Amino acid sequence: MHRGVSRLVNIFRKRTKKDKRLITAIKTIVGSKPFNLQLYQLAVKHSSMARVNSRGLKESNERLEYLGDAVLGAIVADYLFKTFPFKEEGFLTEIRSRIVNRESLNTLGRKIGLNQLVEYDQNKKNALSHKSLYGDTLEALVGAVYLDKGYRFCTKFVLEKLIIPYFDINEIIRSNPNWKSKIIEWSQKENKDLKFEIVGVKAEKQHREFTAQVYIDDEPMATGVGASKKKAEQNAAQKTCEILKLE
Amino acid sequence: MHRGVSRLVNIFRKRTKKDKRLITAIKTIVGSKPFNLQLYQLAVKHSSMARVNSRGLKESNERLEYLGDAVLGAIVADYLFKTFPFKEEGFLTEIRSRIVNRESLNTLGRKIGLNQLVEYDQNKKNALSHKSLYGDTLEALVGAVYLDKGYRFCTKFVLEKLIIPYFDINEIIRSNPNWKSKIIEWSQKENKDLKFEIVGVKAEKQHREFTAQVYIDDEPMATGVGASKKKAEQNAAQKTCEILKLE
Repeated sequence: MHRGVSRLVNIFRKRTKKDKRLITAIKTIVGSKPFNLQLYQLAVKHSSMARVNSRGLKESNERLEYLGDAVLGAIVADYLFKTFPFKEEGFLTEIRSRIVNRESLNTLGRKIGLNQLVEYDQNKKNALSHKSLYGDTLEALVGAVYLDKGYRFCTKFVLEKLIIPYFDINEIIRSNPNWKSKIIEWSQKENKDLKFEIVGVKAEKQHREFTAQVYIDDEPMATGVGASKKKAEQNAAQKTCEILKLE
Repeated sequence: MHRGVSRLVNIFRKRTKKDKRLITAIKTIVGSKPFNLQLYQLAVKHSSMARVNSRGLKESNERLEYLGDAVLGAIVADYLFKTFPFKEEGFLTEIRSRIVNRESLNTLGRKIGLNQLVEYDQNKKNALSHKSLYGDTLEALVGAVYLDKGYRFCTKFVLEKLIIPYFDINEIIRSNPNWKSKIIEWSQKENKDLKFEIVGVKAEKQHREFTAQVYIDDEPMATGVGASKKKAEQNAAQKTCEILKLE
């Protein structure tokens, strides 16, 4: 719907208490009132609360989450590109993934108060809290802002209300030496083909052990083990860094 | 640099033949002349041709490729979101990955003539042609257009010059039943947790065989095998679809 039209419709529609509360919250979080309130109503609706509509579509925030995830990725990519004009792609990719990952988005979603807004099935609370309920809602909110106010405003929102206040990029860079990113950077600099592969999983009751293998230009390098794929890869990357004598 | 300033600088800088050829090519491909020619010069410079500058940065299209990849992802996500208002996230994600993947971008890059523009080390031609030389250049070009002309113009470029002329979306949807996407859609509809895992690799000389395992809500379902991870996953997904009686 055209923005002007949807604003008119919104004016003449009777607001419930819940609507008013959502409008106030969005104004605080986003820095601007909704044009099209329906987008935000959808953004805070978890799929556990979804009804299937007459077109067979589940009405939940999942579509907005898909869109917001992509838009957020582009905005953060742009921000890091411009903030670090002398850093290579491997570095930018790594820092972006430390900002835009499930865990950090989930924490951020909670910090900005999405836990107060998101609607989900209370009976599934425990199951959901382990997943990325708030992070998913945050992505959906970014999708809603993008559709409601366009890319430029959305960039302003993401940077000024989310990234800059809540992430200390220098701290992110300093924090735990990421062996995998080190070796990715190295391989790009040296024009080598780098591949990580999970070559084995041992499962015993609760415990699983993954084995990761690093290949450089299709030559097998070190293997590493760990309780998750990520940990196994880090371990293999660390050993490879040692072999290559990367600090 | 400010656009106006960089345009002035461009006017007073002497154009080489190569510059003029690039400007003409960009005008044809993008539909508009470069403001900042340097961005496009960088976009067509493969890392095999890169010199390391005084800041220790390799001057190649890799940073632009990182940016263009993210921007392209957002633009295509938006396009599919609006084109298919009644389709769920799993469908949109799947169709996007069929458009924006290494192979299809590489083909597209060649079709629009980037093979005539990209500068790379001729000695490495064979090694490079197997990789995604043209696809990477295409992403870098999207990054350059985005920086040079902004998100709105870049969207117009991507849709009108790349996606709409070169992809038949209905054909993409119809083509080969993708078992993995079927099961992803199903799991989203049913609110199930779905996981694919490569649980084994057998390597014998030239031949490798991967084993993939499907988990639904952490319960192991079918396993599948194949000569690549993707094929093993498809095979496991197909068997799982049969178990679940998804058409």
